[in-house]
Amino acid sequence: MPTAPARVTGFTTHDIRFPTSEESTGSDAMNPDPDYSAAYLVLSTDAGDGAEGHGFAFTIGRGNDVQVAAIEALRDHVLGRPVEELCADPGTLARALADDSQLRWLGPEKGVMHMAVGAVLNAVWDLAAKRAGKPLWKLLADADPAWLVSQVDFRHLTDALTPARALELLRRGRHGSAEREAALRERGYPAYTTSPGWLGHSDARLTRLARQAVADGFGQIKLKVGADPADDVRRCRVARAAVGPDIRLALDANQRWDVAEAIVRTRELAEFDPYWIEEPTSPDDVLGHAAIRAAVAPVRVATGEHAHNRVVFKQLLKAGAIDVLQLDAVRVGGVNENLAILLLAAEFDVPVCPHAGGVGLCELVRHLSMFDYVALSGTTRDRTIEYVDHLHEHFLDPAVVRDGHYTVPTAPGFSAAMVPESIARHTYPHGAYWAARTAADEEAPA
Amino acid sequence: MPTAPARVTGFTTHDIRFPTSEESTGSDAMNPDPDYSAAYLVLSTDAGDGAEGHGFAFTIGRGNDVQVAAIEALRDHVLGRPVEELCADPGTLARALADDSQLRWLGPEKGVMHMAVGAVLNAVWDLAAKRAGKPLWKLLADADPAWLVSQVDFRHLTDALTPARALELLRRGRHGSAEREAALRERGYPAYTTSPGWLGHSDARLTRLARQAVADGFGQIKLKVGADPADDVRRCRVARAAVGPDIRLALDANQRWDVAEAIVRTRELAEFDPYWIEEPTSPDDVLGHAAIRAAVAPVRVATGEHAHNRVVFKQLLKAGAIDVLQLDAVRVGGVNENLAILLLAAEFDVPVCPHAGGVGLCELVRHLSMFDYVALSGTTRDRTIEYVDHLHEHFLDPAVVRDGHYTVPTAPGFSAAMVPESIARHTYPHGAYWAARTAADEEAPA
Repeated sequence: MPTAPARVTGFTTHDIRFPTSEESTGSDAMNPDPDYSAAYLVLSTDAGDGAEGHGFAFTIGRGNDVQVAAIEALRDHVLGRPVEELCADPGTLARALADDSQLRWLGPEKGVMHMAVGAVLNAVWDLAAKRAGKPLWKLLADADPAWLVSQVDFRHLTDALTPARALELLRRGRHGSAEREAALRERGYPAYTTSPGWLGHSDARLTRLARQAVADGFGQIKLKVGADPADDVRRCRVARAAVGPDIRLALDANQRWDVAEAIVRTRELAEFDPYWIEEPTSPDDVLGHAAIRAAVAPVRVATGEHAHNRVVFKQLLKAGAIDVLQLDAVRVGGVNENLAILLLAAEFDVPVCPHAGGVGLCELVRHLSMFDYVALSGTTRDRTIEYVDHLHEHFLDPAVVRDGHYTVPTAPGFSAAMVPESIARHTYPHGAYWAARTAADEEAPA
Repeated sequence: MPTAPARVTGFTTHDIRFPTSEESTGSDAMNPDPDYSAAYLVLSTDAGDGAEGHGFAFTIGRGNDVQVAAIEALRDHVLGRPVEELCADPGTLARALADDSQLRWLGPEKGVMHMAVGAVLNAVWDLAAKRAGKPLWKLLADADPAWLVSQVDFRHLTDALTPARALELLRRGRHGSAEREAALRERGYPAYTTSPGWLGHSDARLTRLARQAVADGFGQIKLKVGADPADDVRRCRVARAAVGPDIRLALDANQRWDVAEAIVRTRELAEFDPYWIEEPTSPDDVLGHAAIRAAVAPVRVATGEHAHNRVVFKQLLKAGAIDVLQLDAVRVGGVNENLAILLLAAEFDVPVCPHAGGVGLCELVRHLSMFDYVALSGTTRDRTIEYVDHLHEHFLDPAVVRDGHYTVPTAPGFSAAMVPESIARHTYPHGAYWAARTAADEEAPA
């Protein structure tokens, strides 16, 4: 008798929250008190190989339950599906999820529902890479270019990028890939650090952390701006004095400004030679970013962590609105949509510097940038991945940065799996951490 | 002793679904089988006047539970708040909801979370209008222009519209408002009908319903296109033959095309003299709509039912991407954001023809268009509200169309309240309708 094909037998979600608001870690002009959280998914199978697929959406606290509910809404698309078929072609699932004829209304392709699609697809890619015995970046870098093209949904993209052109780019990306892979394993991939620059830090802490960053080998640091203008000037002065003239100083306004204000404020800070201004205004405002870019050069304009899908990136590139594209591993529809975004960036020759930090974003995005270097853009010039040094201890295959570079992940998978004890302890509201805090709150005098 | 101020004491959500997929009602190229649904909210108070605030997000079936969860996530912003303060200034609540420092990450200002914000704000406006004893359109039309300006969040808009300019527009809109109000009460507001044109209809049914629409006094009908090109040509021919040369024939592609395809397909249908092509491509693609508009004139380009916030509308207008702006009462952040959108449309002199149909959208949008006519744009020229003749029986103050015009609602409130029996019967999954269907499904042979 033929054996039945292995199927996805488990689709388990977790509402995981870390109490980061108790420190000022993660504070910026728009997000003063985040509790970094993950709406987390585990796919299990009856393949008997023990491999699970892990994926998540990142949120900053309240509403993580809504995000979990959105992932749950996709359950029937995955549970019971043949594992082999799913892992051999996540692109078909990607289209099915984006096109669910009823769920689509809740986006389309944006917000909570689209992040849920990303979490599910990333879990499938994690499972696929584990079953292939490769880290995700390597699975992608080794894959047949035509198969990679088949993983991308080109709908609403073809005025900027066709499947035929994508195939050309991927074939071109193969030239010299073995040498680049060797170089990557030797040196790693450039990183920059945001840890010195949170708004909540004192000037003394900013100075200390900025100097430490330089000593640690980082060639770029990032500073949050966008609250009080006089504070911004003072903090930029402090940061520039701390790092000296040769370190790139990136600024991040976290969407706080209108277009005209963004131009005025960025020009005010130009004396400190900022490398880029990030999220100067609404993440939806393609034309606004283009106007700002034209007015603040040579300061570069960077955005993308809140760009909700490939169509927004297409427009940012077509409009000449950005100098730096900051993809996010879990904001858009997973690896498949990030392949589209990397291809668009390659086509327009705009460097990709992924957004990271949060929960597990460093762990994930390094795979995307390393694939891009080895097998697509072929360069790390002006490319660097954000690094924030917190919460890595909760991951089984944590991001490691040495001498200002991300080291190459070698474990099979997408590095999304969290430490089981961390999941249990930080599950909201009944995990040990939150249960204890609730009890303490109830005992405290009003 | 002073009496305590009345407070919001109830925040009750309902998952309501209608089995519209059992007919072909609502079928289009992107949405073949919608079950028109509402994530529904009732606010109650201890004011003792019996007035409740009703609001909802419209969805098309699966995922309505996710939408309910998103509304629930906003509970603490409203429950316990003083009613008088809330109703006197919904704008402050609007900003608090959009700026919730943790929930904001789930958008920002888009998708499930933003629709939840809209549902809550619309419920507050419904309550405010009931307490004022006026239908919403009249409350808005009578309001002090400076107060209306205070209800709008101008963040990320000021490169297109400032508060000062908005005040000018609203003051200008007051000239002759009494005459227009009288005319409105006499004639109503122009409507067009989508009921003939669903993709699932046979040619015979299309012909019959199109002729009926003309007989009923409609000056415009709408036809769904975007699936099979040959079918589109045939159905346009059938529809044009049915209505004759003098009725406006609008086409709606429901996002199915890429930019180049949209241009080709629209030109193919030009011989049938379409009035507008609606949602020719991705609703996120401002630049794509601009390119299509430049290529298909004199056919007009219309979009907006999936435009997720005021920043998207700002760009559609700044880029010259649309001839017709189709706001939606429940996609964006409620009445406050729709005030911003109506002001933008007035500033750019682009006619607003709201999206309606669904569940309760006709009931709501008529208030916005009637306010616009009486006290902002001052005209109904080239303006018409979509009408779809289903599900109105579930509303206490249903939309009524006579001789191709929406009659003026006169009951206090925003007309959002559903018939209590309809709520009970269609609550998913335990209301009488769904419980019976589940039982029938379980009894049916596999």
